[in-house]
Amino acid sequence: MTALATLTNHQIRLKARPSGLPKRDDWSFTTEPVAEPGDGGVLVKTLALSLDPAMRGWMNEGKSYIAPVGIGEVMRAGGIGEVIASKNPAFAVGDAVSGSLGVQEYCLVPAAEVKRSGLFKIDLRLGTMRQWLNVLGMPGMTGYFGLMDVGQPQPGETVVVSGAAGAVGQTVGQLAKIKGCRVVGIAGGPAKCAWVVKELGFDACIDYKSGDVKAGLKEHCPKGVDIYFDNVGGDILDTVLTRINRKARIIICGAISQYNNTTPVKGPANYLSLLVNRARMEGIVVFDYTERFPQAVAELAGYLKDGRLKSKEDVVTGLNSFPETLLKLFNGENFGKLVLQVA
Amino acid sequence: MTALATLTNHQIRLKARPSGLPKRDDWSFTTEPVAEPGDGGVLVKTLALSLDPAMRGWMNEGKSYIAPVGIGEVMRAGGIGEVIASKNPAFAVGDAVSGSLGVQEYCLVPAAEVKRSGLFKIDLRLGTMRQWLNVLGMPGMTGYFGLMDVGQPQPGETVVVSGAAGAVGQTVGQLAKIKGCRVVGIAGGPAKCAWVVKELGFDACIDYKSGDVKAGLKEHCPKGVDIYFDNVGGDILDTVLTRINRKARIIICGAISQYNNTTPVKGPANYLSLLVNRARMEGIVVFDYTERFPQAVAELAGYLKDGRLKSKEDVVTGLNSFPETLLKLFNGENFGKLVLQVA
Repeated sequence: MTALATLTNHQIRLKARPSGLPKRDDWSFTTEPVAEPGDGGVLVKTLALSLDPAMRGWMNEGKSYIAPVGIGEVMRAGGIGEVIASKNPAFAVGDAVSGSLGVQEYCLVPAAEVKRSGLFKIDLRLGTMRQWLNVLGMPGMTGYFGLMDVGQPQPGETVVVSGAAGAVGQTVGQLAKIKGCRVVGIAGGPAKCAWVVKELGFDACIDYKSGDVKAGLKEHCPKGVDIYFDNVGGDILDTVLTRINRKARIIICGAISQYNNTTPVKGPANYLSLLVNRARMEGIVVFDYTERFPQAVAELAGYLKDGRLKSKEDVVTGLNSFPETLLKLFNGENFGKLVLQVA
Repeated sequence: MTALATLTNHQIRLKARPSGLPKRDDWSFTTEPVAEPGDGGVLVKTLALSLDPAMRGWMNEGKSYIAPVGIGEVMRAGGIGEVIASKNPAFAVGDAVSGSLGVQEYCLVPAAEVKRSGLFKIDLRLGTMRQWLNVLGMPGMTGYFGLMDVGQPQPGETVVVSGAAGAVGQTVGQLAKIKGCRVVGIAGGPAKCAWVVKELGFDACIDYKSGDVKAGLKEHCPKGVDIYFDNVGGDILDTVLTRINRKARIIICGAISQYNNTTPVKGPANYLSLLVNRARMEGIVVFDYTERFPQAVAELAGYLKDGRLKSKEDVVTGLNSFPETLLKLFNGENFGKLVLQVA
């Protein structure tokens, strides 16, 4: 066991609510001594953090599916770590764990917070640490339950997914292929599009940065769109709405194109396509499915093992680079699930 | 039997696709001799026509849930009539029927069109002719299946319906009350709002013309909104989206506020409330439920009989007034289901 008294915890806290893209000035950088856990508590050393588009929403004031991060609080982040001290019988020193660790080097989880932080032991035989932040973690769970529970894909249906090379998109597309669907991705740039088709086995991928999304959908979805898994919102959502089939399902997972707006969100002007097509648009929040995570992890880990599911992470090192690394999500620079390696 | 040769059929045909509100010039007024039905055909004398917001959509070009009315064609309209000649064993002279009769005094339904025109005999013991155009007709069926199948109301839930004094809205609200829900209407003007509450028994009605819809929802839906039945779209849809509960259902039945737009439709900027609240927005087209109409008619006729369901029709007389009468729907002048009495 490390001598805890000698350790310093570097933390990144939300200093101000950003307008538009978060700037370095919106964060404060603090240090704290590392404390021993009390009865029932656990001390976790952060190894890697998950950087997700949803984080931008957590910085805003106002009611959402989760309370906003308070000004002065350590920024919320899911992560993978190692237990370095424990007074909780469920966790032993050396255990690999996943949970809401925050953007900091050490996370002291008091007894009362163990459940709320979602702390659980991970089995590194099922997937690597990075995969536990990707296909076996929140993005994978989001893709799994969004596609399977809300989308309910049937063999032969056409599934379109935006943010196809991102963390959620890669799981959604590959899983839809496994379930017997035709899968068309939408991603930014030729490298991502090529990877999605050649490595992940999507039937096609439309480059929204260089091409005409409407023409691409027409070409690659000759039978129309039965399921659209939307990670981006904005014009792409509106365009897909013009190509949906009867009884189509549109899964609203996110709207990354709108998160840094300083003007009002662009609503889908073509939403009456829902009426014409008796279609459904439904939101998904992954936290509703926590009880079923083990079942989904087992299924996805099986696909990882037999090679039908691949994963790609974009790893950046260093806690201090968090403010700039986060921005990669919003300018589309990340290629694969964005991970911040902390230790 | 009338001497058919002596009869003249006055018709109103679509002359031009309107931009914005349809003008009298967008119609042509024609006359034709009335012809005998051939084998399997039926000749119906139009008694009353249903004027509906959906008609505006039928005048536009382009793909929808139903083909547009062609230029030069008799304007499509559902109606009630009397069989005055029949060579079809399913219909006898004197039968009261409902079907797609068109804006004309006589409708000759050839054998091949009997099914497509939806022609069926109506039982005037279940409801008056006007009620067969209202709660027992398309608007009633739309409200019934939209609320029951898409909305799936549970006792104690809060249901909000816009266009509350209109044909669909009155059925939806009263049916939701019968099913044990709290019901809040949105309508234009104090007379409609008072009628909806006093006569139809809604718990409250918000006057969108004079009041603040957001404040009204806050006051009258203290537990939030579980089901929103949307007939209007636009700003009201956007406002309701800010007050929905988890797992709310939004039934997209129409968007009368947008039908005469010459600018693009206003999409719901607050659609991400679907994500935050894991809510669902779904379109309904009544024609999908034709096989189940008899069951719904029987249930609604029972409520009419025992007094739990009331209906109100706004009746205007004269085929020739059709162009101006139709506009009452779009300026909110109609009070109750708009009916054009033809004979």
